[in-house]
Amino acid sequence: MATETSEKGAPTTPVRFETHPDRYTHWKLSFEGPVAKLVMDVVEDAGMRPGYALKLNSYDLGVDIELADAVERLRFEHPEVKVVLVTSGQQRIFCAGANIYMLGSSTHAFKVNFCKFTNETRLSLEEACTKSDQHYVAALNGVASGGGYELALACERILLCDDGSSAVSFPETPLLAVLPGTGGLTRLVDKRKVRRDLADVFSTLAEGVRGKRAEDWRLVDKSIPKSRFEQVVADEAKTMCAQTKDKVGAAITLPPLEVKRTEDGKKFTSEYRYVTLSVDNSTRVAEIMMRAPEADPATTSEALRALGAANWTLQAFRELDDALLDLRFNHPAIGLVLLRTKGDAEKVRAHDRALHGLRGDWLAGEIRLKMQRVLKRLDLTAKSFFALVEPGSCFAGSLFELALAADRTYMLDGGDEAAMVGLDELNFGAFRMSNGLTRLETRFLHDPDAVKALEGKKDLLDAGEALKLKLVTFTPDEMDWEDEVRIAIEERASLSPDALTGMEASLRFAGPETMETKIFGRLTAWQNWIFQRPNAVGERGALTMYGRPERPEFDWRRT
Amino acid sequence: MATETSEKGAPTTPVRFETHPDRYTHWKLSFEGPVAKLVMDVVEDAGMRPGYALKLNSYDLGVDIELADAVERLRFEHPEVKVVLVTSGQQRIFCAGANIYMLGSSTHAFKVNFCKFTNETRLSLEEACTKSDQHYVAALNGVASGGGYELALACERILLCDDGSSAVSFPETPLLAVLPGTGGLTRLVDKRKVRRDLADVFSTLAEGVRGKRAEDWRLVDKSIPKSRFEQVVADEAKTMCAQTKDKVGAAITLPPLEVKRTEDGKKFTSEYRYVTLSVDNSTRVAEIMMRAPEADPATTSEALRALGAANWTLQAFRELDDALLDLRFNHPAIGLVLLRTKGDAEKVRAHDRALHGLRGDWLAGEIRLKMQRVLKRLDLTAKSFFALVEPGSCFAGSLFELALAADRTYMLDGGDEAAMVGLDELNFGAFRMSNGLTRLETRFLHDPDAVKALEGKKDLLDAGEALKLKLVTFTPDEMDWEDEVRIAIEERASLSPDALTGMEASLRFAGPETMETKIFGRLTAWQNWIFQRPNAVGERGALTMYGRPERPEFDWRRT
Repeated sequence: MATETSEKGAPTTPVRFETHPDRYTHWKLSFEGPVAKLVMDVVEDAGMRPGYALKLNSYDLGVDIELADAVERLRFEHPEVKVVLVTSGQQRIFCAGANIYMLGSSTHAFKVNFCKFTNETRLSLEEACTKSDQHYVAALNGVASGGGYELALACERILLCDDGSSAVSFPETPLLAVLPGTGGLTRLVDKRKVRRDLADVFSTLAEGVRGKRAEDWRLVDKSIPKSRFEQVVADEAKTMCAQTKDKVGAAITLPPLEVKRTEDGKKFTSEYRYVTLSVDNSTRVAEIMMRAPEADPATTSEALRALGAANWTLQAFRELDDALLDLRFNHPAIGLVLLRTKGDAEKVRAHDRALHGLRGDWLAGEIRLKMQRVLKRLDLTAKSFFALVEPGSCFAGSLFELALAADRTYMLDGGDEAAMVGLDELNFGAFRMSNGLTRLETRFLHDPDAVKALEGKKDLLDAGEALKLKLVTFTPDEMDWEDEVRIAIEERASLSPDALTGMEASLRFAGPETMETKIFGRLTAWQNWIFQRPNAVGERGALTMYGRPERPEFDWRRT
Repeated sequence: MATETSEKGAPTTPVRFETHPDRYTHWKLSFEGPVAKLVMDVVEDAGMRPGYALKLNSYDLGVDIELADAVERLRFEHPEVKVVLVTSGQQRIFCAGANIYMLGSSTHAFKVNFCKFTNETRLSLEEACTKSDQHYVAALNGVASGGGYELALACERILLCDDGSSAVSFPETPLLAVLPGTGGLTRLVDKRKVRRDLADVFSTLAEGVRGKRAEDWRLVDKSIPKSRFEQVVADEAKTMCAQTKDKVGAAITLPPLEVKRTEDGKKFTSEYRYVTLSVDNSTRVAEIMMRAPEADPATTSEALRALGAANWTLQAFRELDDALLDLRFNHPAIGLVLLRTKGDAEKVRAHDRALHGLRGDWLAGEIRLKMQRVLKRLDLTAKSFFALVEPGSCFAGSLFELALAADRTYMLDGGDEAAMVGLDELNFGAFRMSNGLTRLETRFLHDPDAVKALEGKKDLLDAGEALKLKLVTFTPDEMDWEDEVRIAIEERASLSPDALTGMEASLRFAGPETMETKIFGRLTAWQNWIFQRPNAVGERGALTMYGRPERPEFDWRRT
């Protein structure tokens, strides 16, 4: 097999996603009243692994993990922040995008997962603007190229310093024979609505576009002379703050997740408070077990704050998020994830209802949005998911979303303590997929009335009812359960991982497309393909040859 | 470089797309009043090239060229036909889809172009149902697997014989490690709105689904016992005919296009009546020159029929279609196509207006739809297009769509006889892109009012006005024209063909997504990627190993 199966560039230690502003290496987060400043100042020799230098404010996964952390903390820990200025701490360069040598020396699987994570971070930043009233402004005090400009595109406003050198650019196609991998092309024409012919010129112009032309082409919102740049940025921030409402109620802090990780041959276990992730690399099957809360929920804003991050809805989904990222980056050979739950379904629904009851509170809103993001992360994970509904499980409300997000759901019919599933308010609008629909709406595209009818079903449902209501896929009885589930698991684990990834990406997002589904469905798929092509990553490919004196060699056939 | 750059499976003779029912090898087209029967009966040893046998009604490009011809002729030559029954002339098999050995022995570029063409054929069949009132019914009198079921999915109704063996299936993922490549997954969940978990089960079940279950899962419209199958199919056809209006006005016939092809070293020229295609493989640049009509247009239904296929709008766009297919299949190394026009812009607009004036006539409607399909074919061609607007050109009305479809437009500003462009009625609704918008609407996504304002601009526009109205990209003057255009061409021709394909696919279709853009943008991109992966086409890949006793070997890493 070709280069992509080699282990080059595989991280030698597992990637971990938890960090804190006190420990940031590449970003500086500071506050001035309602304005936060997020300054990118990447330390060249502090890459995640040896072999490349992070010159010119270029980034690797480590840099982006810090950015993701900052975006998340700003939402929970700094509700007073209304505007976030994203700028550079280096001279003449805002950000040069993803580091080319890091990409060139990474496995295909890592590259794709890296792009997916940076995409999710950019989308969370956009969501902060539209849903959390935290408005990101890119203050481009230098060149923003490739992923650097893509970061700016994710911001609500782009202000460019007109100093004769600061520019925006997408040099990927002309210099590297790949595409901007973080939604850049889609955001150009769909978000900023840049005319397609100008977008075409721009995307093939290695040196990019500066000054007034960048503004005329809608690539930036304003081009500002250097002498007035800082003042205009400050003025714009002030104006945006004035237009943004104050949030009522204290912040909470996000402590590190506590997790006990054990390893036994090819088996890995991560035990969180409410989540257990078990990975078996010999069968290529993992299991995520989510447990219901034991305590009663917080039903007042004060109680919600007293619980803080220990609140079940927040903690359980933060843990699930961490487990999903662990699966993506540290367990690439896992093809199938079994989703199980355990505990009292009514407790889950009580916590959901409490969150719904407090929906006017910004903190409850943030918790819901976090749950939504985690569930989207699951939708977008390139692994198969089977939900297994057994006696003692609690697939209800927010945890029933796991079953709806799964590629299939098996529910055991019968037994002494029959397995039950249940819906609640949150299933009907709180958790939207990338396509803008709820998982129930997506499931019942053929019969929207069925969703309305389900709103009346408040009781827990046994397997017979769940099957009749089309909420689960198969309901084997006790006689058949073990064999049927075992065979389904073995079959799934035997199929081509590539074909499954493409198949799942095509089947999971029926219905309308959004910028988000376009980025993941269309742009990512093209990028995936291009990342594999000899013209980019072959021995004489442009990505491989970058920085060397020789020119790349192309197979000119267009497909 | 890897296998895909080898010349294996490249057709030794150029692919040609013209045929006629009298010469069909694999299909039989017959008529019974308003019902046409299109019977697939593929001749095993009549593949387009040696090396594979077309067993079990499997198809190659040659089979699909005949189908595309039949769908087109039914629209122009048989307006009396209201229902088209698609069925099989072989026992127990409807169609086994694209031939695996043909795919396994084809270049990557050929596979992708083959899938694209079959996709366009399926979409033209769907368009015939919705726009031309010719309703396709798949009468599945045997197994429809892979592309065979995809053909059925493109039909308006799917009737399945319940005989204990007839089934529908997508064995691609379980058996071949690829995806159904002709819109199958998208049509499952988006057109037929099959529930995603059932679609998941179905798409991994090599043997497929039969009888009542196929109907319950919405995979077919009706499962019909064998004893009643023929009668029910006939009854359904009769009912559909009764619900369909008669078309007024005679048919026309589509004669073969006359084309003179010459070859001079690495240069090829194809001269049609209104189109000249020049290909230069040494520079990897081609040119399409389209000429304006000389005669006045037909302005009555009678005159339109007297002209028949010689009518400029129809003939010029049929020729353009043929040239585009020639470029795709026979000139894969061409990366850039220059679009030029020549003649009287007012004549073009007069023909457009005449067609628009006759829009109540089914034949005028069919001509417009054909033009729309050809322009879509251009949008979907994986080559760059630059329109060059020079003195003596006639980029007006339907020919201005070429400039709007191009990735960029260069217009010469000045000179004795200044170059002019012009809009007319047809630019504002007659030619929709795959995204459902006109090219003007797509261009002005950021300012829909601009499109309305353009409706009032009936005069021809010089370069200054066209630039101001944002209708062209660049307007060099006589001093700069030659250098600027030459450099732009050389630069474009030097870029990675893969990155350009992905870039163009991402920039050309801003705005809403439709099933059509999903099929081409999402599904095709995934399929492109999977077709490249060692798990499918490597030495031990599933597609390569198909039919051999050994099992394929997979790199299990998910991306």
